Amino acid sequence: MKRLRKQLKKVNPFTSANVMSKNVIKEQMSHAPGHVVYTGSKEIKDVLIDVFDYNATFVEEETVHEFSSYTKDTDEKTVTWVNVNGLSDTQALTDISHKYDLHPLVMEDVANTSQRPKLDEYPDHLFIVFKMLYHDIDGKLNTEHISLILGKSYVLLMQEYDGDVFDGIRDRIRLSKGRVRTTGADYLMYALMDAVIDHYFIIIETLSDKIEDLEERIYTNPSENYSQEIQQLKKEVIQVRRSIFPLREVVNKLEKVDNHLILKKTQVFVRDLYDHTIQVIETVEVYRDTIAGLMDMNSTNIANRMNEVMKVLTIIATIFIPMTFLAGIYGMNFEHIPELQMQNGYYYFWGAMVFIFIGSIIYFKRKKWL
Amino acid sequence: MKRLRKQLKKVNPFTSANVMSKNVIKEQMSHAPGHVVYTGSKEIKDVLIDVFDYNATFVEEETVHEFSSYTKDTDEKTVTWVNVNGLSDTQALTDISHKYDLHPLVMEDVANTSQRPKLDEYPDHLFIVFKMLYHDIDGKLNTEHISLILGKSYVLLMQEYDGDVFDGIRDRIRLSKGRVRTTGADYLMYALMDAVIDHYFIIIETLSDKIEDLEERIYTNPSENYSQEIQQLKKEVIQVRRSIFPLREVVNKLEKVDNHLILKKTQVFVRDLYDHTIQVIETVEVYRDTIAGLMDMNSTNIANRMNEVMKVLTIIATIFIPMTFLAGIYGMNFEHIPELQMQNGYYYFWGAMVFIFIGSIIYFKRKKWL
Amino acid sequence: MKRLRKQLKKVNPFTSANVMSKNVIKEQMSHAPGHVVYTGSKEIKDVLIDVFDYNATFVEEETVHEFSSYTKDTDEKTVTWVNVNGLSDTQALTDISHKYDLHPLVMEDVANTSQRPKLDEYPDHLFIVFKMLYHDIDGKLNTEHISLILGKSYVLLMQEYDGDVFDGIRDRIRLSKGRVRTTGADYLMYALMDAVIDHYFIIIETLSDKIEDLEERIYTNPSENYSQEIQQLKKEVIQVRRSIFPLREVVNKLEKVDNHLILKKTQVFVRDLYDHTIQVIETVEVYRDTIAGLMDMNSTNIANRMNEVMKVLTIIATIFIPMTFLAGIYGMNFEHIPELQMQNGYYYFWGAMVFIFIGSIIYFKRKKWL
Amino acid sequence: MKRLRKQLKKVNPFTSANVMSKNVIKEQMSHAPGHVVYTGSKEIKDVLIDVFDYNATFVEEETVHEFSSYTKDTDEKTVTWVNVNGLSDTQALTDISHKYDLHPLVMEDVANTSQRPKLDEYPDHLFIVFKMLYHDIDGKLNTEHISLILGKSYVLLMQEYDGDVFDGIRDRIRLSKGRVRTTGADYLMYALMDAVIDHYFIIIETLSDKIEDLEERIYTNPSENYSQEIQQLKKEVIQVRRSIFPLREVVNKLEKVDNHLILKKTQVFVRDLYDHTIQVIETVEVYRDTIAGLMDMNSTNIANRMNEVMKVLTIIATIFIPMTFLAGIYGMNFEHIPELQMQNGYYYFWGAMVFIFIGSIIYFKRKKWL
Amino acid sequence: MKRLRKQLKKVNPFTSANVMSKNVIKEQMSHAPGHVVYTGSKEIKDVLIDVFDYNATFVEEETVHEFSSYTKDTDEKTVTWVNVNGLSDTQALTDISHKYDLHPLVMEDVANTSQRPKLDEYPDHLFIVFKMLYHDIDGKLNTEHISLILGKSYVLLMQEYDGDVFDGIRDRIRLSKGRVRTTGADYLMYALMDAVIDHYFIIIETLSDKIEDLEERIYTNPSENYSQEIQQLKKEVIQVRRSIFPLREVVNKLEKVDNHLILKKTQVFVRDLYDHTIQVIETVEVYRDTIAGLMDMNSTNIANRMNEVMKVLTIIATIFIPMTFLAGIYGMNFEHIPELQMQNGYYYFWGAMVFIFIGSIIYFKRKKWL
Repeated sequence: MKRLRKQLKKVNPFTSANVMSKNVIKEQMSHAPGHVVYTGSKEIKDVLIDVFDYNATFVEEETVHEFSSYTKDTDEKTVTWVNVNGLSDTQALTDISHKYDLHPLVMEDVANTSQRPKLDEYPDHLFIVFKMLYHDIDGKLNTEHISLILGKSYVLLMQEYDGDVFDGIRDRIRLSKGRVRTTGADYLMYALMDAVIDHYFIIIETLSDKIEDLEERIYTNPSENYSQEIQQLKKEVIQVRRSIFPLREVVNKLEKVDNHLILKKTQVFVRDLYDHTIQVIETVEVYRDTIAGLMDMNSTNIANRMNEVMKVLTIIATIFIPMTFLAGIYGMNFEHIPELQMQNGYYYFWGAMVFIFIGSIIYFKRKKWL
Repeated sequence: MKRLRKQLKKVNPFTSANVMSKNVIKEQMSHAPGHVVYTGSKEIKDVLIDVFDYNATFVEEETVHEFSSYTKDTDEKTVTWVNVNGLSDTQALTDISHKYDLHPLVMEDVANTSQRPKLDEYPDHLFIVFKMLYHDIDGKLNTEHISLILGKSYVLLMQEYDGDVFDGIRDRIRLSKGRVRTTGADYLMYALMDAVIDHYFIIIETLSDKIEDLEERIYTNPSENYSQEIQQLKKEVIQVRRSIFPLREVVNKLEKVDNHLILKKTQVFVRDLYDHTIQVIETVEVYRDTIAGLMDMNSTNIANRMNEVMKVLTIIATIFIPMTFLAGIYGMNFEHIPELQMQNGYYYFWGAMVFIFIGSIIYFKRKKWL
Repeated sequence: MKRLRKQLKKVNPFTSANVMSKNVIKEQMSHAPGHVVYTGSKEIKDVLIDVFDYNATFVEEETVHEFSSYTKDTDEKTVTWVNVNGLSDTQALTDISHKYDLHPLVMEDVANTSQRPKLDEYPDHLFIVFKMLYHDIDGKLNTEHISLILGKSYVLLMQEYDGDVFDGIRDRIRLSKGRVRTTGADYLMYALMDAVIDHYFIIIETLSDKIEDLEERIYTNPSENYSQEIQQLKKEVIQVRRSIFPLREVVNKLEKVDNHLILKKTQVFVRDLYDHTIQVIETVEVYRDTIAGLMDMNSTNIANRMNEVMKVLTIIATIFIPMTFLAGIYGMNFEHIPELQMQNGYYYFWGAMVFIFIGSIIYFKRKKWL
Repeated sequence: MKRLRKQLKKVNPFTSANVMSKNVIKEQMSHAPGHVVYTGSKEIKDVLIDVFDYNATFVEEETVHEFSSYTKDTDEKTVTWVNVNGLSDTQALTDISHKYDLHPLVMEDVANTSQRPKLDEYPDHLFIVFKMLYHDIDGKLNTEHISLILGKSYVLLMQEYDGDVFDGIRDRIRLSKGRVRTTGADYLMYALMDAVIDHYFIIIETLSDKIEDLEERIYTNPSENYSQEIQQLKKEVIQVRRSIFPLREVVNKLEKVDNHLILKKTQVFVRDLYDHTIQVIETVEVYRDTIAGLMDMNSTNIANRMNEVMKVLTIIATIFIPMTFLAGIYGMNFEHIPELQMQNGYYYFWGAMVFIFIGSIIYFKRKKWL
Repeated sequence: MKRLRKQLKKVNPFTSANVMSKNVIKEQMSHAPGHVVYTGSKEIKDVLIDVFDYNATFVEEETVHEFSSYTKDTDEKTVTWVNVNGLSDTQALTDISHKYDLHPLVMEDVANTSQRPKLDEYPDHLFIVFKMLYHDIDGKLNTEHISLILGKSYVLLMQEYDGDVFDGIRDRIRLSKGRVRTTGADYLMYALMDAVIDHYFIIIETLSDKIEDLEERIYTNPSENYSQEIQQLKKEVIQVRRSIFPLREVVNKLEKVDNHLILKKTQVFVRDLYDHTIQVIETVEVYRDTIAGLMDMNSTNIANRMNEVMKVLTIIATIFIPMTFLAGIYGMNFEHIPELQMQNGYYYFWGAMVFIFIGSIIYFKRKKWL
């Protein structure tokens, strides 16, 4: 039980990632707004920064350890994709903020892992926050805080952890596959978000497998109590829902944003993004309903089982109580009880008992009480 | 049980058609957006393409096996209806896409059978996705993914499976019945969607029959447990609801679309379409309520039955326990128990027992406990 | 039970009037849109058409059997009220449609009794569909499909059955009471709708009586099970709700309609209509809540009763089981049981039994278990 | 029970004041719209009409028995407040309607006590309907229908009953306290509505007292069944809610009304009115939740209690049944039962019984079953 | 129980702070609108007023006991922050109102502690009401009524109690840290509200700790009944929700306000404020769901436990009743019962009993009834 509880705690949807710890809040409160504090739990010592620089004819890839050592000018002729792996190096974040002239509040939200998905418009850049979901080796669901800043000719992507789902895009840039090399930073932003949302489908597919497996077991073996498993699945679905749900608004806003940063021809792709987001959200909603249904079925099963047990037990008692009464009758000490003197009285009595017993069973069966 | 479970699985509303399988997702993720991948399960070897070309005075009907062999020009003087039966020939879809100059994302959604109903506006064409519902031979409910593209003088209709509900329209075109030959492509689109929505009425009528049949049985034979049948009907209703519900928004958008593709005089018909859609949705909502009511009634019946059984059993025990006590009294070995010496004591005792038994029964009957 | 079930079926809210039968649908599907098919169940042989023609100084009343025989011109100087009693004569409907130059879809909806209440605006006329509710002789609730078409100087009213609530208006026209003779067709439309909505108050008053009567009985005789009566009342309320609810939108649209057909001074009356509609709807909503409350109360009563019975029975058993044990003690055959040799042992034993019995009763009463 | 039921009926929220009686409806239906019929139940023989006429420097107060005898001209230089106490004198209402040139439908709604709160704009006047709530001597909650008509320089206030909450305002007019004498009719309207809404706070405070008292009792004496009291409180809260809820929309409309009748500087006060209305409504909503919570707590208490009783009784039976079995053992008539010949066998038996009894009790206590 | 009840009462969410006491209402009703009455319960004798006056180069700090003694002119060159600690000195409030030329209704709301959070726009100032939440020494949650008035160059902050969360801001002003000294009054307003919302995170963190602790205990020790603790936590969450929820609208309005008082560059910060508010509200909503889940789990646990107990007890009875019957058999006095004459009959009987007992236990275990 203790172990299970611990495991449950790990996926507790409102403590793991979405509420800042008290210490962090206190630290932050002692600072003025705009101060960058990393609120997550993963300290990465060596924050690596990958930089892609490309246009239709040219591509350059570089990995820097300290952003201050990256001195290339921001150049409108190429698209620059700066990818920061780890948020604990707040100095790097501040450097980036200065180089790209970002609003002071932006980096505060980049480092604040409890920030919910959102889209903020600034005159020179769009700031998008969303959540990556992935299962770790133990099958536990983790949330990763990702920030994306879209400028005229650059995309800044800040991830909380190492490793991501963007290798396909990197390959497409390197090998000049698809549209990405021939389009601007806005298409890169779309491609990145599309990869994240595509990954959501895998997450919900895993959820679907778990739910179906549980459903199967509840049907084939209804006598077990699955309530804790169901509760845990429910928490997982809620966690997914909380990460994905605000994205609907973000992508919707992105579709309607009236900004020179997003070209007309990219807007069609954003609409496609919106479709996929809706599809993910609807599927998650269906899972919620399904889990509620499983919960109902589980408690109905348990109640039915309990009722069955009680009924059988009560029937046994009900048959034997009158029989005990009759045995009591012939245990009485009245001076004159004619049956007692009968030669085969005892056998007749047993006959009566067997008759009553079998008769009752047949009667109850016929009334479908047994 | 196992068999039932399998059957249930087939209509599982969130796995059958609406969530892409993991493999497909993975395959798709390795491609850039806009790449056409068929996500359904029905591979049709020979995808037939029916083409109607007509105006008020002229009609031509042709069936081609490969779209590349269809070389007729798109001509604004006639309405062209291209009907693709099967989505597994992605090459044909790509060819069509090029011939009619469609946006690259359109064909991705045409082939993606998990795409929910939607309406996308493009400068030169409208793209509509909806779902056909039909019962197969086993009475199982199937969903078919249908895409419709409306251009200036053409309608492209892409269906997942062979066979459809449009034969009436084909006859009307051939025989020049009704308005269809004298109006444009927009009216053809309306006629096609109208046929689909009319077919929904048959689907919900079948559902209605099933629900009424179940209701009848619950009323006439309340001692059975119908929960699994109810659960299955509920899943079916949910599946219908998920296919039809988004159509409300689609038709609503279609009614309000400000586009030269839909003529003013056709808009009145679209409004009629909207009315019918609402009517279908409302009926489905009523079914949901009805099924919830059946569920309540079923569990009330089961609980009542259980209570009745327990009550009767408890009453039997309650009558016999005091009688057993009295029998125990006269089984005691006190040296001086006057009743035991009475000549007819035993008969008096039996008299008292019968009196108590009948008296209790009458008392319980009068108190309506029995 | 069987009889009740039949009765319930009659008021089944989703089969009686709102869903077309499969045959009708199939018939309709084989026709092009705009084809007039009567979908109700009441075939009236001789469809009578009443025509009123009036202005401030003049009134003429006529009944025609075939509309084709009514050849008077539509004249803007008088208001014409054409009242069709019965929808099975589709020829008459088509004739009217041609004479008043109505849109082809209008007559389809007039004859389609499953059409929900709605308001459609056409350039030359307004088309309103609503439902009349009335109790027939058996107290059964029936729905009548009514269509109203408002033109510049005419009102066409098509009713499904004979008999209506408009006799008051007919008298006012004949005797020139109130405003109706001095105002236009729009005021006549208002007066007709007002009469229908006023009649709703009688319907809901009857419902209120039934609910109060049931409530009274549940309070005074809580030991009965009223769940089927409640269920039936609930169905009736749902039927009323489904007929009236869409009217809110209709009247709201009518209030906001920007159309030369409705004069400014009539709009104030339409606002009044809206007030009454809201009032009816709110009352029906209260009824829904009340019925839900009755249902709760009923099941609480049943559960309480069951609990009471079980408690009393258990208490009887609980008292007698220890007493039986004691009787068993003195039925034992130990060689040396001192109490058995006592002169009055048997009487002492009875004394102890009575003491235990009365003591237990007092104890349970004091603990409020009895 | 009967008495309680009667009392409940009095506050029945959907019959007392909000639905017109059938007779009244029928009477009204036989008249044309605009006909004034009093639908309440309180016939007041002598309807008194109080008239205040004031401006910054002048104040005159008059009470008239028949409005026709009040012949003073409506004068824009003074504010006139006409207060009608009782609605049964429909002649007076009609006279007022003519003198102030009101729309014919206004007086119909003034006399129709089942009219829900609303605001109607007319070119020359605003028409507001709201409900006064007060507790009568028996603590019963009553609803009073109040209509207010705001003109350029007059306020007409029509109340259903004698006695009101406006004495403070009368004093302020007489003594020229506050702003009322120096401002126009619009401020008077605000002051009157403010007095009504302030009175709502007293009503909900009384409700709060009742709820808290009940809550206290449920906590301190959880073994009682409070469901009927809770049900009654719930009905009272629903009644209050129905009277106040539509006022939100009324005041909101009043705040946004674009009308020369309400001066800019009065609009700030109307906003304040809106705040207070929201506050009342929110408090009532909290009460609803609290009552739902009480209901839950009450039924949990009852179930717990029942469970406790059943558990204790079952435990008694469970202890004594094995003991009775053992007594039965030594009541058997086997020829050779060694224990029976033991000198102290009987005492050993008793020892065993006491041991089993006490042991079971300790065991059950330790397992927290007792 | 009594003590617990008292404690509960203290945090009663609808009586403690949000509904004015009847006396206060009555007092207020006897006054004209705009009269300032303190409706809270904390009388502070010596209301201290702290005044900050600063710009980029200059800062002055002063504490006055009577506002009338503060005679400095309001000067647009410096930002003035007037902080009133305590609302019981209504004279001071009136003085401030006159000096800053506030609308008469503003001070009424400042002193009315039951006023819900809101934002009112006036031509020269914005008036914001919100609630501070803090835990007192006993861990009880208290609500403090705070009003903030933003003018061109001043911020008036009126708090109900001493002590606040603004010391960080005071330090930043004194030491010229962050932006506050170089920006206007609008940024000061933002900083103050930000401090309050940051403090909400600590409050909800404490709530989170309590909920997690309770959850832990329900999991590890499911046999307890936690319903009262859960109920209390629920009330606390509701109290927090009621204080924070209306703030969403306030900050949203603040973001959209079109007013010269809030500079463009401050609006970005207000948007950040909105993000945080949403985050707090969403977390509180999750808590509500979690508590509902705990409640379910708690009652399921209790029901399961009860069922387990009943099952075990019933099983004991069920085993012993047939055994008692058999003992009764051999206690009968038939003249000829062969078993009784057997030498080891008694031992065989015991053997049978032990066999039945153990057999039943094994049977029940195998059927998972035990």
